[in-house]
Amino acid sequence: MNKGKVILISGPSGVGKGTVVKEIIKDENYALSVSVTTRLPREGEIDGVNYFFTTKEDFLHRVENNLMLEHAVYNNQFYGTPKDYVEQTVAQGKNIILEIEVQGVEQVKKLMPEAVSIFIMPDKAGVIEHRLRKRNTEDEQTIQNRLHIAIGEMKQAHKYDYIVINGELEKCICDIKSVINAERYKKENMLDFVKGVLENDEKTLCQ
Amino acid sequence: MNKGKVILISGPSGVGKGTVVKEIIKDENYALSVSVTTRLPREGEIDGVNYFFTTKEDFLHRVENNLMLEHAVYNNQFYGTPKDYVEQTVAQGKNIILEIEVQGVEQVKKLMPEAVSIFIMPDKAGVIEHRLRKRNTEDEQTIQNRLHIAIGEMKQAHKYDYIVINGELEKCICDIKSVINAERYKKENMLDFVKGVLENDEKTLCQ
Repeated sequence: MNKGKVILISGPSGVGKGTVVKEIIKDENYALSVSVTTRLPREGEIDGVNYFFTTKEDFLHRVENNLMLEHAVYNNQFYGTPKDYVEQTVAQGKNIILEIEVQGVEQVKKLMPEAVSIFIMPDKAGVIEHRLRKRNTEDEQTIQNRLHIAIGEMKQAHKYDYIVINGELEKCICDIKSVINAERYKKENMLDFVKGVLENDEKTLCQ
Repeated sequence: MNKGKVILISGPSGVGKGTVVKEIIKDENYALSVSVTTRLPREGEIDGVNYFFTTKEDFLHRVENNLMLEHAVYNNQFYGTPKDYVEQTVAQGKNIILEIEVQGVEQVKKLMPEAVSIFIMPDKAGVIEHRLRKRNTEDEQTIQNRLHIAIGEMKQAHKYDYIVINGELEKCICDIKSVINAERYKKENMLDFVKGVLENDEKTLCQ
């Protein structure tokens, strides 16, 4: 069985990243990574499904022992990706998706250079702003701030292996799956296969 | 319109490369390159369709003036890929396939590093030999010679960008199209798009 791929997905808020990921993991060959967090579970959240809930002490212990692929702090709480969970999932032949920020991508890439990073872009200018305004719940300054952050995120797109466009949802999903499929056939991932065929074919030749 | 991709396809004889290519070019987004040759047309061959037929003098003139992406000699005749034909085809948004040997791939890659090279492998050892024997028209020595050549070709697989497997024809075609689709979304091919979105979104921000 082929090992699955580790897929790092980012994109500006408002690009529809969550929907894209939700659709992709409907395919049984794909799974979403479960993060470890120190924040308390909200109502309905299940340990091991939504998050692995843990203490700050345990979290820091994991970080110190290189058991986290990446981690970050939001609102005074830790969030991170457990290395063992990711490794077990890919060992089962599944592709695992990590929905993370650019700093997290850089951390994972250091430990797992073979991970594939994908940045999702809107299909044209104005889309992010339009979605922010459509919510109609925020004042102009908040909208401007959020747009500023989204632009900052898009300025990091060049740090990713691939940049896909979320214009039409189905096409975006298909393109991401294309990228993952193609990665499997990169020369460096196929050399063991070639070696196996050659060794056996050369035996025939010697007879 | 996006420019098409130049696709270099090789594989050992007997791997079914011709059938794969024939199926792919049924898709209107793909075309097969037409080679220039100095050999005489065979019955039914049409100039500009099967080959561009020309003189040795003209052929060498083209080579000297860098009008050929690659060229080689077989049976005392020249064969080569005309640069202008390939460039015009990709400018029309079509992917163009060059079915060439490893030496040709190396020549094209020097002039067009963005060309995508794909090596087609059989799905297991023994396939090439089986196909050679099935023909039932050749003596043992000829079979051994051909197998020897095929093994030599497979030993060049590591020089290609991608290695795909032709086990099931439909899957092989789908995998090659996946590779080409994914290539379009490589970071370096998307930066102009990102720049365009950013420039316009930043204008909104300043208002």
